[in-house]
Amino acid sequence: MQGFRDSATVLSSGQPCDCLPPLRAAAEQLRQKDLRISQLQAELRRPPPAPAQPPEPEARPTIYVVTPTYARLVQKAELVRLSQTLSLVPRLHWLLVEDAEGPTPLVSGLLAASGLLFTHLVVLTPKAQRLREGEPGWVHPRGVEQRNKALDWLRGRGGAVGGEKDPPPPGTQGVVYFADDDNTYSRELFEEMRWTRGVSVWPVGLVGGLRFEGPQVQDGRVVGFHTAWEPNRPFPVDMAGFAVALPLLLAKPNAQFDSTAPRGHLESSLLSHLVDPKDLEPRAANCTRVLVWHTRTEKPKMKQEEQLQRQGRGSDPAVEV
Amino acid sequence: MQGFRDSATVLSSGQPCDCLPPLRAAAEQLRQKDLRISQLQAELRRPPPAPAQPPEPEARPTIYVVTPTYARLVQKAELVRLSQTLSLVPRLHWLLVEDAEGPTPLVSGLLAASGLLFTHLVVLTPKAQRLREGEPGWVHPRGVEQRNKALDWLRGRGGAVGGEKDPPPPGTQGVVYFADDDNTYSRELFEEMRWTRGVSVWPVGLVGGLRFEGPQVQDGRVVGFHTAWEPNRPFPVDMAGFAVALPLLLAKPNAQFDSTAPRGHLESSLLSHLVDPKDLEPRAANCTRVLVWHTRTEKPKMKQEEQLQRQGRGSDPAVEV
Repeated sequence: MQGFRDSATVLSSGQPCDCLPPLRAAAEQLRQKDLRISQLQAELRRPPPAPAQPPEPEARPTIYVVTPTYARLVQKAELVRLSQTLSLVPRLHWLLVEDAEGPTPLVSGLLAASGLLFTHLVVLTPKAQRLREGEPGWVHPRGVEQRNKALDWLRGRGGAVGGEKDPPPPGTQGVVYFADDDNTYSRELFEEMRWTRGVSVWPVGLVGGLRFEGPQVQDGRVVGFHTAWEPNRPFPVDMAGFAVALPLLLAKPNAQFDSTAPRGHLESSLLSHLVDPKDLEPRAANCTRVLVWHTRTEKPKMKQEEQLQRQGRGSDPAVEV
Repeated sequence: MQGFRDSATVLSSGQPCDCLPPLRAAAEQLRQKDLRISQLQAELRRPPPAPAQPPEPEARPTIYVVTPTYARLVQKAELVRLSQTLSLVPRLHWLLVEDAEGPTPLVSGLLAASGLLFTHLVVLTPKAQRLREGEPGWVHPRGVEQRNKALDWLRGRGGAVGGEKDPPPPGTQGVVYFADDDNTYSRELFEEMRWTRGVSVWPVGLVGGLRFEGPQVQDGRVVGFHTAWEPNRPFPVDMAGFAVALPLLLAKPNAQFDSTAPRGHLESSLLSHLVDPKDLEPRAANCTRVLVWHTRTEKPKMKQEEQLQRQGRGSDPAVEV
């Protein structure tokens, strides 16, 4: 607007004399400059360019970490410890599957506070398959129904009770890893498995009564397994010792864990659907580095708690532990 | 320059007539607009403002985490798990103290790979104070010499074998926390302790035979302790349940742990030098939140390892576990 008023002023001195052309020229120049001014002002209003992004992180496959969990005294401690380890890994999606009748406040709250991309699933282990007090773990392997529930979700059969409800869209590049909540994981392990094409394997520390169990590798191929127990199992590997490419799992819709598999054969019950042992992909420097440990946390003694509770002085039940 | 040429053109049509004033006015307006244009162009050349920084992070006190450790099957697993948790905490300095004759390759390598700011210390527990196989932990509390070694280093008595060798310069704002390598720590705990003025306290989960032990707080002050065992100890708190301001520790050069303290009195042997129980600073929502758990890791069984070793087929000793 400024411009037009200015040029109007200039032309207002309108008696007949030959200075009209230069005045018209001046008015036109004023219009031009007003136009330039408004262009420059518009440029100044333009927001600054966004900062440079890291080179397309979307290109990296997502790691789907499947963790079965059940209520016990150390559950929160274990899940806090694991969730903090997972928070160090980019492009990770945590599938936490409770062995319960419904989602518990402890797990729901922990997931919400974790800052992780997660999906919350729940399935109760059938009574017949549940361990009785004092029964050794191998009588009924734990977490079978829960791991299969996560496979169902990945295959689009739904059932999420919290977090990300939609399964990965068709064609998603990803890898699936079964990470129990009591093992110890080096953050390095996850980058070893990220680019798995079929099934990748590595050693596991402190398992099977050995310092470590793991594949034996020659010329970059798996030629055997270091294990003390039933070396002739189709896949003598621990649950923490392998990862499976998501496209392979989706291409074999019947591949899942068999709760009736004999002791030590649970991993084989899934893997025999998916890969030939000779095609396993060795990771962790040809299986010479231990990046995951089969640690076990002691069950805390609650003798004093029971004594105090009998005296009505037990630990405040309102405090979550 | 543009401006002056324009105005010159306008004034060039110079025959005597009263349109000179408006032409002068036009020339002046053109000068004004040229000025404005050059101002706007200068603004556009100005570099964009730097992105906002977090409010001077140097102002935050440093957290000195003191961790005694000793060689055992689960040592590396425990230290990997702890170091990954500590890597989530800004402004943290890890003082890792080995109970050994000298620095071990396992610990030195782990520290170097941790990415943490650390100081590596070593002191061997005297034979007389060492636990014999099968002796319960309370006969000789573990880690006493190692924690005192860290206090010596903080007080400028040197002795570092790796990492940062210089102690904090006088006047450093900091807090000291004694974090054993087998407990479980929420990352939230460290922000609770960071601004400790004297000695801060909070509950510890799964300790002393209880769901949790911890201070009882009324009107923001510690008025007692929830514990089943010797509630009348001067400070019935677990090693994981308190932190001490660095300036306070430096002001009391004789404050340290007493290896001859009776069972359960080790924490008191340090704290009695430093603070009156009524002046303890309650943290973690007035001691109503559990952010650290006294977890214990099972000692792995090595029966199969021994069998295989007798057959010369033991786990490759070149593989670090």
